[in-house]
Amino acid sequence: MNSAVCAIAQTPEPPYYVVAFTSVRTPVDDGYEAMAQLMLDLAARQAGFLGVESVRDAEGVGITLSYWSSLEHIRAWRNHIEHTAACDLGRAQWYAHYFTRIAKVERDYGFAAG
Amino acid sequence: MNSAVCAIAQTPEPPYYVVAFTSVRTPVDDGYEAMAQLMLDLAARQAGFLGVESVRDAEGVGITLSYWSSLEHIRAWRNHIEHTAACDLGRAQWYAHYFTRIAKVERDYGFAAG
Repeated sequence: MNSAVCAIAQTPEPPYYVVAFTSVRTPVDDGYEAMAQLMLDLAARQAGFLGVESVRDAEGVGITLSYWSSLEHIRAWRNHIEHTAACDLGRAQWYAHYFTRIAKVERDYGFAAG
Repeated sequence: MNSAVCAIAQTPEPPYYVVAFTSVRTPVDDGYEAMAQLMLDLAARQAGFLGVESVRDAEGVGITLSYWSSLEHIRAWRNHIEHTAACDLGRAQWYAHYFTRIAKVERDYGFAAG
């Protein structure tokens, strides 16, 4: 599997849930990349985790889509002690703005060049 | 309103719908940026359009989230003649892979640094 294919999460048939996190970074770095990677790795080990897609552009605007089997699994991850601590740090220094949306995926379809 | 705030769509109270489009670009340019902007402008003029957020990184991986009032409005946009023509061109030259998910937003919350 090449990196292009890996950029798109291999999710199961719907229904499942997506947490869409759109954020604007501050200019503060101070451990952000290491923490972001730590949180991705930790999320991937949680029950109900189905996959993640994450992109940030040169202007510091990012979108992360994480996929989960249920709202209960999303709630458990939100309340995970290491995750809440990272979110506190994020609000204190790394994020100027963010917006989170929790949505139920009802339909999906894809394309891969032949 | 500064550009950081504009990066996050001002959506209404849930429920509403999101179309999450994750894509990997080919190295082919040939009018891609102009067409992408044209499609954003055209989408924004459709009935039921609520907003859009779009990010692409240096490796060519992009996520676009467009927000809509209903599945019927999403269907109408998907079948819009100029949009389907652009999608055909996208599959022919601009996208190596993409995956689209249609989801119902049930809950949202945000943060802005003070």
